[in-house]
Amino acid sequence: MPALTVFNHVSLDGFFAGPRGEIDWFKTIRPDDEYFAYTHRQAEAGGTLVFGRVTYQMMKSWWPTEAARASDPLMARVVNANPKLVFSKTLPEQEDEPNWKNVTVVREIDPDELARRKTSSKTGLTILGSGSIVRELTKRRLIDEYRLVVVPVVLGAGKSMFEGIGETPLSLADAKTFGNGIALLTYRPV
Amino acid sequence: MPALTVFNHVSLDGFFAGPRGEIDWFKTIRPDDEYFAYTHRQAEAGGTLVFGRVTYQMMKSWWPTEAARASDPLMARVVNANPKLVFSKTLPEQEDEPNWKNVTVVREIDPDELARRKTSSKTGLTILGSGSIVRELTKRRLIDEYRLVVVPVVLGAGKSMFEGIGETPLSLADAKTFGNGIALLTYRPV
Repeated sequence: MPALTVFNHVSLDGFFAGPRGEIDWFKTIRPDDEYFAYTHRQAEAGGTLVFGRVTYQMMKSWWPTEAARASDPLMARVVNANPKLVFSKTLPEQEDEPNWKNVTVVREIDPDELARRKTSSKTGLTILGSGSIVRELTKRRLIDEYRLVVVPVVLGAGKSMFEGIGETPLSLADAKTFGNGIALLTYRPV
Repeated sequence: MPALTVFNHVSLDGFFAGPRGEIDWFKTIRPDDEYFAYTHRQAEAGGTLVFGRVTYQMMKSWWPTEAARASDPLMARVVNANPKLVFSKTLPEQEDEPNWKNVTVVREIDPDELARRKTSSKTGLTILGSGSIVRELTKRRLIDEYRLVVVPVVLGAGKSMFEGIGETPLSLADAKTFGNGIALLTYRPV
């Protein structure tokens, strides 16, 4: 059955973004063909992309641009074209960016509706970034898998997607490393 | 050459202790013969144990007791007998606990003195816990290896051994998993 998966890069000390949401530390990731192929396979497997408002707006400000399409054509095509589900109380229902298609704005997390979306999706749902959404869905035990791409860098401060949730044991489902020092750890709920 | 190694359990979200220093979440670690053998090999390889005051006092309040020696005789023997180096401005120079031997109290971090201790030690130095000491030594780039035992549990809040240090890239030297879902990630300075 298609699953609801979190796919996030995290620093060694557990942050998915810097204190002000910075992701410029991604630049420390060394080029590595196998890692690059993995992230592209992951993107092409695709499915519905799920966001909170903050990550959504960051994605929308980058991926439809010429610069993004020139720098990573495959990723730009996937992110621009795939169905996108965004949780927001304030965003308009309709998006007006012509290169940014298939957006559904949802006001509240409704477990039943989410379950229906999982069942009706052939390729599953993937959350990128979106700490507050990961946190809420984790509390409600609605996430099926966490893929943590551990980047070999310490940040010292930043945003955690698990901040403030209670002690939550998970189960390690898979571990893999790449030549550039990235460790991919996959966890599932117990 | 013997090295200065950090050996710490961390939660999935990067904490080596809860907000008030709690380590009761270690109880979530499932029994696993291979993991148990690894931690005992690690302890027997021994060398000098290095602490900050807080971790030192916690260790001293547990390992010399009858209960500790009954629950984990090998670990108790190692921790009680091995040379211990503790960084503290306030602890007395001499310890008075008869089952707690070989203690050296040092008032300041002196890189030259630390280098001499590394050279003169046959088996190296291992830091356990001691977030503030890991932080200071990391800032000064005095640590040779970080062994992070990633426990499959989210805490949501806690103490980070890297809190407040600037962006610091490390290099992944080794990765290993155990049947109980623990991932052992070993990093070295770049």
